[in-house]
Amino acid sequence: MSKIYENAQKMIKAIIADNMPRNAVENALKAHNFVGNIYLVAIGKAAWTMAEAASDFLGDRLVKGVVVTKYDHSGGDLPRIEIYEAGHPVSDENTFVATAKCIELAKELTADDELLFLVSGGGSALFEKTLDGIELSDLQDVNEQLLKSGADIVEINMVRKRFSAVKAGRFAQLVAPAKVFAVILSDVLGDRLDSIASGPAVPDKSTVEDAVKVVDKYNLKLTDLQRSYIMEETPKIIDNVTTVITGSVKTLCEAAASVAKELGYEPVVLTTLMNCEASEAGRMMGTIAADTVNGRNSFVRPCAIIAGGETIVTVKGGGKGGRNQELALASAKAIAGLDGVLIFSLGSDGTDGPTDAAGGIVNGDTVAQLKAKGVDVDKVLADNDAYNGLLAVDGLIMTGPTGTNVNDVTVILCD
Amino acid sequence: MSKIYENAQKMIKAIIADNMPRNAVENALKAHNFVGNIYLVAIGKAAWTMAEAASDFLGDRLVKGVVVTKYDHSGGDLPRIEIYEAGHPVSDENTFVATAKCIELAKELTADDELLFLVSGGGSALFEKTLDGIELSDLQDVNEQLLKSGADIVEINMVRKRFSAVKAGRFAQLVAPAKVFAVILSDVLGDRLDSIASGPAVPDKSTVEDAVKVVDKYNLKLTDLQRSYIMEETPKIIDNVTTVITGSVKTLCEAAASVAKELGYEPVVLTTLMNCEASEAGRMMGTIAADTVNGRNSFVRPCAIIAGGETIVTVKGGGKGGRNQELALASAKAIAGLDGVLIFSLGSDGTDGPTDAAGGIVNGDTVAQLKAKGVDVDKVLADNDAYNGLLAVDGLIMTGPTGTNVNDVTVILCD
Repeated sequence: MSKIYENAQKMIKAIIADNMPRNAVENALKAHNFVGNIYLVAIGKAAWTMAEAASDFLGDRLVKGVVVTKYDHSGGDLPRIEIYEAGHPVSDENTFVATAKCIELAKELTADDELLFLVSGGGSALFEKTLDGIELSDLQDVNEQLLKSGADIVEINMVRKRFSAVKAGRFAQLVAPAKVFAVILSDVLGDRLDSIASGPAVPDKSTVEDAVKVVDKYNLKLTDLQRSYIMEETPKIIDNVTTVITGSVKTLCEAAASVAKELGYEPVVLTTLMNCEASEAGRMMGTIAADTVNGRNSFVRPCAIIAGGETIVTVKGGGKGGRNQELALASAKAIAGLDGVLIFSLGSDGTDGPTDAAGGIVNGDTVAQLKAKGVDVDKVLADNDAYNGLLAVDGLIMTGPTGTNVNDVTVILCD
Repeated sequence: MSKIYENAQKMIKAIIADNMPRNAVENALKAHNFVGNIYLVAIGKAAWTMAEAASDFLGDRLVKGVVVTKYDHSGGDLPRIEIYEAGHPVSDENTFVATAKCIELAKELTADDELLFLVSGGGSALFEKTLDGIELSDLQDVNEQLLKSGADIVEINMVRKRFSAVKAGRFAQLVAPAKVFAVILSDVLGDRLDSIASGPAVPDKSTVEDAVKVVDKYNLKLTDLQRSYIMEETPKIIDNVTTVITGSVKTLCEAAASVAKELGYEPVVLTTLMNCEASEAGRMMGTIAADTVNGRNSFVRPCAIIAGGETIVTVKGGGKGGRNQELALASAKAIAGLDGVLIFSLGSDGTDGPTDAAGGIVNGDTVAQLKAKGVDVDKVLADNDAYNGLLAVDGLIMTGPTGTNVNDVTVILCD
């Protein structure tokens, strides 16, 4: 195994380790000074793992708590914590039951208490309780009306959250006078707090006026009760909340930069918002890599060029793959024949697309190795079959499911 | 007009001026010490303009010359220079006639002479003379056989150039014992000398063995004469040629970097090889820009982030546009609402796609301005109608045709 390949393997391990929910939660708790009795509410796909880390860290100081996570995402009993599983990506009746338990807990708290609020991806669907008189079917109906009229996701959320008892800052209001310490694993590019889990502990930026505009623009059919909820203002000032983003694509990139530096590569982070088509991002990263090797751009070797985000795959073929595998494979052509360079792309959840791989890794030999096996890179990409392409040249990254999701990171490593 | 927009306009003017054939040729000639009598052969789409610059610079020192350019690309008579126009992108009989004149000139030269060989894009088609007994129709036949069998462009060229009297270093051989000073305006990404105009004055890297492999692999049907030409080796050592690339996407990026620095922006060149889908390159550049503004990547403002290359457009809609316009418009969403940032993309030929614009320029207001006019960016892009989208918000770059083509450059300018 070449030195550069070894370095890549070290980077992959360190990046994942640094961004595991357990590490991330511990880092956040260590830096926080709790006042009063500590309670816990954890929501999202990583809720159980985050709650376990908090429980281990806090021990007896944790009075009690509630976890709401996706079906099959609980790891078992935790002391003094009630664990609920519910529907994701679509809320179901269990969502309401579990969220009602969280509200119940919130209402019990006094000024002497502090709520540790652990938030991870999937929180929007998993943490929901509608206001009195609004049913799941009402939410679905309004959703469908808006979708059919061509409303965008920002407009849809502007209306939807006004029917919720917990979204758009309302959960933090329920917790008051107790304080909230919100610890967030973000899977939303750009880390906009009001987007993550629809912002249960964040002041809402949109107003009644904004919501009414959407209702009028799309001529929404609403009941009188629904209309009265639209007219109810969401919290604009919330002063009982401290928020820490303890994991996100930004920390993923920072972890990559940090370990790259330790290994002797000057790190350059291009972006944390990469969201274009995976194969095209791969082509772009490949050309940046090639010019770095050939000394035709501004980057000085040895260096690690890092891009975080979450690309998309427009599926056209019937093959097997994921966005990180496709990105990596698509980058291989530009560096074909070049020495001292490799490119890897890694999904932090360890399961890239519907596969058991976390991503892909390629170097200057990849295209020739594939050709020697009679495999044409362009054909593999056209068939969205990056998994099998990379499998043939030992180019899959296998980490197993990590239990976290803070998007993806792509790294060019140049000796 | 805002300061940043003024700076962008200054950059666009300076980038184009610096890469005009006249400037580029003058720069190369100034730095060269001619020995002996000077002759000239100029080939390619910019051949006439390059020859005019050389003629003006050299005056009476130029003994005589031949220009071969595309139909309607001659600007009129030049002293002591014969001017020919021929078919492009497909060679025709005039190609052979004109190239024969160049060969005739080459053969006249002695060790006391020096040939100034001006090469620009389109040279492959415009500069061609087949070996005795090979006709245009033979070339076409072999081409078609190879294309049908699935051969790639590298394989096709490996065979084709063996039927040529001027490609793959053979023209330089004809000029010997005279010296050749080759001045190149490159439109080939990566500036591989053997690819530019099929390398008339560059040693050929492929061998008889390579060519025979392709013939066998695709079971090509060849005449005995054709087969004998395949077996004839191309020049491997050429010692009478000095080559200067006086213009290319690299000089385009360097010009952008240089003027950016003068204007107070720290330049960063990402790549000179950008060749992915235009709209996806735009999305990628947009996210790099947004994170630069928000201080979430490694670039420190004020800076100019530069990418050169030539993207592609997969046409799906019926609109009007070009790759630079599409790239610019596609980048606008990522920077929507942000201040102190703009992105422009510029084709050095001044005619981006089948339009009269050279490219596009967008900023943080572009998306909102379009929305106010009832224009949806995604719809415009899906319809490949970037020209009309940009036209509506004063986002077209108009330079007029420049007479050069050294690909494209995209610039993010961050205050």
